[in-house]
Formats: sequence, structure tokens, C-alpha cells
Amino acid sequence: MKKIEHIGIAVKDLKASNELFASLLGKKHYKIEEVASEGVKTSFFKSGPNKIELLEATKPDSPIAKFIEKKGEGIHHIAFAVNDIVNEITRLKKEGFTILNENPKKGADNKLVAFLHPKTTNGVLIELCQEID
Amino acid sequence: MKKIEHIGIAVKDLKASNELFASLLGKKHYKIEEVASEGVKTSFFKSGPNKIELLEATKPDSPIAKFIEKKGEGIHHIAFAVNDIVNEITRLKKEGFTILNENPKKGADNKLVAFLHPKTTNGVLIELCQEID
Repeated sequence: MKKIEHIGIAVKDLKASNELFASLLGKKHYKIEEVASEGVKTSFFKSGPNKIELLEATKPDSPIAKFIEKKGEGIHHIAFAVNDIVNEITRLKKEGFTILNENPKKGADNKLVAFLHPKTTNGVLIELCQEID
Repeated sequence: MKKIEHIGIAVKDLKASNELFASLLGKKHYKIEEVASEGVKTSFFKSGPNKIELLEATKPDSPIAKFIEKKGEGIHHIAFAVNDIVNEITRLKKEGFTILNENPKKGADNKLVAFLHPKTTNGVLIELCQEID
């Protein structure tokens, strides 16, 4: 775990939330990216050495739509940058964590990603992400 | 808003969660601090340029006890470091955010803190914090 890469926040209306977070952070989002396979449209803000990722569902069965239905808008996950996601998955499995994606998948922002089940991490959905070269 | 200073995570059992996050992050917490006025016991982990703060309630009417009762364990707040908390509160009020502590209060880790109401921030409880000289 090198550092927190980004914090993911589930929102209902990406356009409205982009304005809200621009007011909050004092700067605008710097990109918008859709990840069709995950059913999400994302926007990214820089915050010092970290990023904030807003996530809007693009289809009713998107994980983000389900999250908002259950818990409302709010923080969805914390993503940690790792150098070698396969090694980190192996290490965390040995430590007893449940890995939701034993084979990392392609996420937003040119990353390979894998999630840990929040039941094994105090209710926090943790993402591991490795930059794709 | 300089950067994310820490992420606060509400936990039921600080001792157990300290072990869990040590396994996750690959390093132990570096301090424990009680904030009696808030009814919380906290522990801190370094994560690159940020910190992770675990929060355990020390009394039944603690905000953390109420949060866990309502939502379960999980991410409680994101704290942003600011240079001048009074100026930042004034700026954010003008932007339309609801400030829960117009007079900043003493928080953990030698900080002056103030919170924004999550109803005005997409369900995210935001803390502003300024290091006390």
C-alpha cells in the first residue's frame, strides 16, 4: 500500500455534483470518464497528492445505483495505490481479507483494480489500484 | 483546501480494528488519543502523505455511537487541511454550505476543526482542520 490514490464518492447527478465539489475544493474537475463495463460515469478532481472521484450510475443495475438505493449518496470507497496488485492480493488473502476480484480488472483512470469485501474491512470498501504502464 | 489530511473511520472495537488496519496497511498505528469532549477514542495510521483515523465511541451518546447505530461501521468523514479555518468557513458559507461549527473547536491531533453538514455535501461529512501552532 503506497498511499491513498483516491476517494470514490457515489452521486446521483454528476453535473450538479461537479459544481458542488468545485465550490468545495475551489477547483474544477479535470476529466470525465465513462467505464461502461461497470455502469458508471466518473469525474476526477485533484486534491493535493490525492484525487477525488465522483461516480454516477449509467444503468439501474450499476453497483453505484445499488449503493445509493441502499445507503444514499456518500463515500463509496477508498482506493490505495499499489506497485504490484497481484502480490498485494496474495498478501491480503493470507492476512484473511476477502478479495472480490482475484483477477484484477480494468478500472477508470488507466488502472488495474481489485476490491476487498467490506465485511472484512470494518465496513469500508477498499480498492487496490495499479497504474497500467 | 490544501489536501486530504485524514479519513475518519467509525469502528466498534478500536483494539480489534487497530490489528485489522495494521494487517491491511502493513504498519501499526502510531498513536492513540482520547477526545473526552467528543466521546471518542482515536488511533492514527500514516498512509503516505495522509492519515487514517479510527474512531471508537467512549459513551452511548457519542456521535460515533450514533453513526454506527444508524449506518454500521465504516467511513465517517473526510478531513481537509486548511491554512486558515476561519477564512475557509466564511468562504464555504458564501458558497452555500452549512457549517456545523461556526466557531471551530479543538479536535484530536492538535487541530482546530469544523464540520460541514453532509446534506449540503452529497452525503459526505467533511471536516476542515487547521494545525494549532
